[in-house]
Amino acid sequence: MVKIELHRVSGDFHLEAVNENGNALQMDASPKIGGTDKGLRPMQLLLAALGGCSTMDVVSILKKQRQELKDIKITITGEREQDEVPALYTEVHVHFKLYGQLDKDKVEKAVSLSVEKYCSVAKTLEATAEVTYSFEIIDA
Amino acid sequence: MVKIELHRVSGDFHLEAVNENGNALQMDASPKIGGTDKGLRPMQLLLAALGGCSTMDVVSILKKQRQELKDIKITITGEREQDEVPALYTEVHVHFKLYGQLDKDKVEKAVSLSVEKYCSVAKTLEATAEVTYSFEIIDA
Repeated sequence: MVKIELHRVSGDFHLEAVNENGNALQMDASPKIGGTDKGLRPMQLLLAALGGCSTMDVVSILKKQRQELKDIKITITGEREQDEVPALYTEVHVHFKLYGQLDKDKVEKAVSLSVEKYCSVAKTLEATAEVTYSFEIIDA
Repeated sequence: MVKIELHRVSGDFHLEAVNENGNALQMDASPKIGGTDKGLRPMQLLLAALGGCSTMDVVSILKKQRQELKDIKITITGEREQDEVPALYTEVHVHFKLYGQLDKDKVEKAVSLSVEKYCSVAKTLEATAEVTYSFEIIDA
């Protein structure tokens, strides 16, 4: 079982989430609805989770293939339904920037295995949104 | 468009996610797979997002109903598929503890509207998991 505890920190909407090891993160609502902008929005967490999940898989796969990944940066973007409540994501895109002398075919395979096969967050979001990806290798 | 940037902070899997206002959160993998436990796991973020989203709706609705909510604490639990990769959530439960002299019917309505109707994260997770909720009012 996975367990998360939430408590309110300040104002109406500033919340802290804590896992069973004591790791914490902050969420808050937009000032437009009375929030104080002291943390990510809940719907932003879904994109962060997708980026984290797919990146961890990519890093693991490249490590097994003895590819020396010097650094990795990821941008996740999402489009939500317009003028709806609830407003789900309709399209989500993950772009990976991979740094190092890396084999393009191995990177392509790692990224596709991650997003299309292994990542539990991607599979969850795919039920309601189109999830796509792209990558670039930077060997500077 | 919603946009999140991720970069690696340390080790193989310790990542930081940043939104467009500069709010940040940490993720990391389990030490079992080579992580260093410096943040929440990506799949834990989904539960934190669900708790945050539904709580913000509950707080808003009770405020409109002039209910004086002194504090709120939330526990979110999830069961994942066993021995599968990916391992999606199959059941997710949100339990709200609401503090104050609150009208039980109004709380019941706020909680059910939030989880069953308004919360975008709940609607996203419902596509692949059963999402349930419960609440208690603590007037001490």
